[in-house]
Amino acid sequence: MKETKPSKGAQTRQRIISEAASLFNRRGYHGGSLQDLMKATGLEKGGIYRHFSSKEELAALAFEHAWRESFAARQNDLDVIPNNVDKIKQLITNFVERRPAIPGGCPLLNTAVDADDGNPLLRDHARKALKGWQDRIESMIAEGIRSGEIRRGVDTRRLANLIIASLEGALMIARLERSDQALRDAAAHLHGYIETELRNQKRK
Amino acid sequence: MKETKPSKGAQTRQRIISEAASLFNRRGYHGGSLQDLMKATGLEKGGIYRHFSSKEELAALAFEHAWRESFAARQNDLDVIPNNVDKIKQLITNFVERRPAIPGGCPLLNTAVDADDGNPLLRDHARKALKGWQDRIESMIAEGIRSGEIRRGVDTRRLANLIIASLEGALMIARLERSDQALRDAAAHLHGYIETELRNQKRK
Repeated sequence: MKETKPSKGAQTRQRIISEAASLFNRRGYHGGSLQDLMKATGLEKGGIYRHFSSKEELAALAFEHAWRESFAARQNDLDVIPNNVDKIKQLITNFVERRPAIPGGCPLLNTAVDADDGNPLLRDHARKALKGWQDRIESMIAEGIRSGEIRRGVDTRRLANLIIASLEGALMIARLERSDQALRDAAAHLHGYIETELRNQKRK
Repeated sequence: MKETKPSKGAQTRQRIISEAASLFNRRGYHGGSLQDLMKATGLEKGGIYRHFSSKEELAALAFEHAWRESFAARQNDLDVIPNNVDKIKQLITNFVERRPAIPGGCPLLNTAVDADDGNPLLRDHARKALKGWQDRIESMIAEGIRSGEIRRGVDTRRLANLIIASLEGALMIARLERSDQALRDAAAHLHGYIETELRNQKRK
């Protein structure tokens, strides 16, 4: 495949999205002002908004960027783990230990709360991000059931939600307390639950 | 005790706080504008801000109001339950089934995310609200241990955080999906965990 260098305009656009992701993830979409974004990018208002049709569009693209980074960080090293139970456990560990480069906590949690009663475009992106995460975990569980690593009869959606909810809720506590303790406790609880309720012990 | 009727000014102040609580809990503290608040209260800017030193003060009072309502809703009917294990289970059920009168989801989750990187006063109020909730659950666990209803050796803070994190994270999912399924699943998981890991079976 031939690599084409992105145009100057495309590079600038990407840089704005990246700065907006960092700004909005810390301050929220209402709290992150155009002035902040001008300062972060060194661009004038016109230089920013000629790349986007609206603040909503920029917010959606910034969320996608932030989510992509977070999602990738959580899946670090998963491919080299053959067993699906261990893979799910590593995903949980990654959530606690591998923080994405974009500051401000989990973009999904932030955006879910932020777009809850206001920005339907952004809310739609958050809903799809959640769906993607649920699907990723569910597919690991389903594969584990097929391979005999995970017990039959596990409710894949329910377990995926249990993992996501425990981690996101613990992140809320951890950020308020400025301590990772709640996150580490949540991971330990999930690991224990997975070992006793999920892993097919007969196979060992 | 003699009941004194609150002055007209105090009544207006309370009405503003109540409207601000509803507005900020839905839209966030940045997203809820003065215009929205003027519309909701029927007051002019001066009529609103002569009661408060700043938007931050109003935001903090609005949060306290919203949190008090939520916290009360979650503790409904707890006093009539004698056993502490059942009390904790009812608290979890209340979180799912008894929604507070103030719309927009859990004020703690909303405010924790909203005040995370910006409003230190508001963040401090959210941190204290979390602490109050943790303490409430921990005291029920501790009482249950003393009375022999709950096994010795349970880590009270860890369990309190597990309950809070699972419910708040499930609420994030439920609000994105516009379905209570994730919340009901989280409550069922917690109930099961409490029965098997917490309740002192020897005592039965």
